[in-house]
Amino acid sequence: MRELMARLTAAKAAARRLAILSDEARRDVLLRLAAALRTRTPELLEANAADVSEMPEGDPRRDRLALSEARVEAIAAATESVAALPDLLWEELEARTMPSGISIRRVRVPLGVVGCIYEARPNVTVDVAALCLRTGNVAVLKGGKEAARTNAALGALLADVLRAAGLPEATVTLLPPTHEAAEALMAAEGLVDALIPRGSARLIEAVRRQARVPVIETGAGVCHVYVHEDADLALAARVIDNAKTRRVSVCNALDCVLVHRALQARVPELLAPCRAKGVHFHEAPEDWGHEWLSMNLSVRVVDSLDAALDHIARYGSGHSEAIVTESPEAAERFRREVDAACVYVNTPTSFTDGGEFGLGAEVGISTQKLHARGPMGLAALTTYKWLIESRGALRP
Amino acid sequence: MRELMARLTAAKAAARRLAILSDEARRDVLLRLAAALRTRTPELLEANAADVSEMPEGDPRRDRLALSEARVEAIAAATESVAALPDLLWEELEARTMPSGISIRRVRVPLGVVGCIYEARPNVTVDVAALCLRTGNVAVLKGGKEAARTNAALGALLADVLRAAGLPEATVTLLPPTHEAAEALMAAEGLVDALIPRGSARLIEAVRRQARVPVIETGAGVCHVYVHEDADLALAARVIDNAKTRRVSVCNALDCVLVHRALQARVPELLAPCRAKGVHFHEAPEDWGHEWLSMNLSVRVVDSLDAALDHIARYGSGHSEAIVTESPEAAERFRREVDAACVYVNTPTSFTDGGEFGLGAEVGISTQKLHARGPMGLAALTTYKWLIESRGALRP
Repeated sequence: MRELMARLTAAKAAARRLAILSDEARRDVLLRLAAALRTRTPELLEANAADVSEMPEGDPRRDRLALSEARVEAIAAATESVAALPDLLWEELEARTMPSGISIRRVRVPLGVVGCIYEARPNVTVDVAALCLRTGNVAVLKGGKEAARTNAALGALLADVLRAAGLPEATVTLLPPTHEAAEALMAAEGLVDALIPRGSARLIEAVRRQARVPVIETGAGVCHVYVHEDADLALAARVIDNAKTRRVSVCNALDCVLVHRALQARVPELLAPCRAKGVHFHEAPEDWGHEWLSMNLSVRVVDSLDAALDHIARYGSGHSEAIVTESPEAAERFRREVDAACVYVNTPTSFTDGGEFGLGAEVGISTQKLHARGPMGLAALTTYKWLIESRGALRP
Repeated sequence: MRELMARLTAAKAAARRLAILSDEARRDVLLRLAAALRTRTPELLEANAADVSEMPEGDPRRDRLALSEARVEAIAAATESVAALPDLLWEELEARTMPSGISIRRVRVPLGVVGCIYEARPNVTVDVAALCLRTGNVAVLKGGKEAARTNAALGALLADVLRAAGLPEATVTLLPPTHEAAEALMAAEGLVDALIPRGSARLIEAVRRQARVPVIETGAGVCHVYVHEDADLALAARVIDNAKTRRVSVCNALDCVLVHRALQARVPELLAPCRAKGVHFHEAPEDWGHEWLSMNLSVRVVDSLDAALDHIARYGSGHSEAIVTESPEAAERFRREVDAACVYVNTPTSFTDGGEFGLGAEVGISTQKLHARGPMGLAALTTYKWLIESRGALRP
């Protein structure tokens, strides 16, 4: 534990250095990282093969864990695209001079030390490191046991890149894949400015409950499409299909269709595209509020827009919710009254994504309301400080 | 506990109503509240006198607890001034149309349910309720045992005001002043969107450690003034004096003066105004990092700007830090390298305050980096949602 705390203390110290690094220097280290990923692909694949060989055939995590030349190239390209994003630091967010004689500016700065606890995917290691470097943050990463060798190889590569760039190795700290390391990170009050869990609902829940440092939650989405009585049925069927079947395993995938009673006889028509792709439908109340993440879908007939709003307030998770309607009034009520990160009109929930929202890079999809909500871009990795100046103004 | 959870559930339900209340209706309820405080001052003072009579003479909390006609009038006037602040809700924070055909808007909305755990001051009850009402939030308040009768009287008054305005009583929920109520509030995952502890360092620490709902921390400030070698000494002496002695019990009060070694012989001159007012000086290293909240002040001579920056990084609490210098370069390094909510040049830390910063109302002074940092205005009680619209755009 002492060794872990020493590493977290070193990370905090490195944050002072990172915060004042120029935009050019931050971009430079990302380009070096991309180049190193390409030239050192063989050693990464070798370490990864050793990890993969220990995972049982048929384990669904095997695909998440496995690297290939193409995947390493994709990671390198993603790193370059993060380097190409505009710099956010020192942006002036507001400025004024007060009657007291003080001038005040609020400027954007890095959070400092950003922690991440994740599971098998090794691309998260580079991804989070790159997003943090771009925004002047130190990254402290705790990956899964399954990816131990791959992450060790990535860690060695990162250390070399940082050394060559003249930066402290603690700029990106890879903690051992142990429970003890996760505990240290969650308890590191004063050393970690934000902790982002990435992975299964169980992991996120454990971090939320245990962490004593500030957490940015990402995760579960119980998403609805409500088809209002005046909906364009062909449009509604397409929206339902895209929201459900585009990718069933992601958090923005549709879990429950609510249909106005006036359209009860048309339900088969609304669900026809999904049915043709093999989606199973569920009408039992015990399935309401269930996040399927599979080719399953709950269906409920409701009496009114109000009933749909009540259902969503009770069973939704505040992630992504959609209405299909021709009525501007119904659309406006839905937009105003649904308490969710993303509220859609005549558009499928599958668009909830940093790229689709034009955010450049996606840090994750926040399911909380403080700091950031919904898809998070690089700005979610920043905070601000107030700069105050005068010639000896005194407060009465 | 079941009764407490039922009240928190009712608060969550009321949040749906509050979120869609018009600006006019929100202002109206605040004006009704101010009027009721004035007409019902006698019953408030009677309840308060009973609370005060049970507190031992000489207890420092007695002054915080005691109401008078003038104090109730000040609370009513503050409520009116919150009503007069501009509305923030539904402000469009960004908007764009994407190549996919979806249009995206990000608009400001209330947090939902804001909890507050506080101690003896009964003005906090009205203050937090007013700030929450202005921003369309439901408030759940847990005051101290010492103010039980005063808060009960305020609760009855608030319930009458809400009923007269046609709002659910759960719009402002006053929980009993019990440990059990605090525990319920801290554990109310999914029902409380943000919890703000207001009061002693011990209270804030307890909430931070125990809460499973998102917390906005306010609190401790270990504040420094660093006098650089080229400082205007008369200006520095005034800045130190104002930062230290304006009000010693507040979080922005000065705790430690750092003086460049070149000015060692001039230290008495720098401290003369403070000395004249009876401040005691401390040079022992064990006092570094101590928040005095009294007429005491640490003093340290440092070798350089770098040494001052190191001291502040190690002993500061990230609240308010100041430099006195004639050098634009030294000022810029200090502004960039000090990791604190408020960084001052030639200006005392006593200005760290929502009013002095032009924020209208002050929700508190955040000592964290997520969501809000430093003095928080009404915007800290809001979040946003993404509104997405198209005519059946599908994600490939």
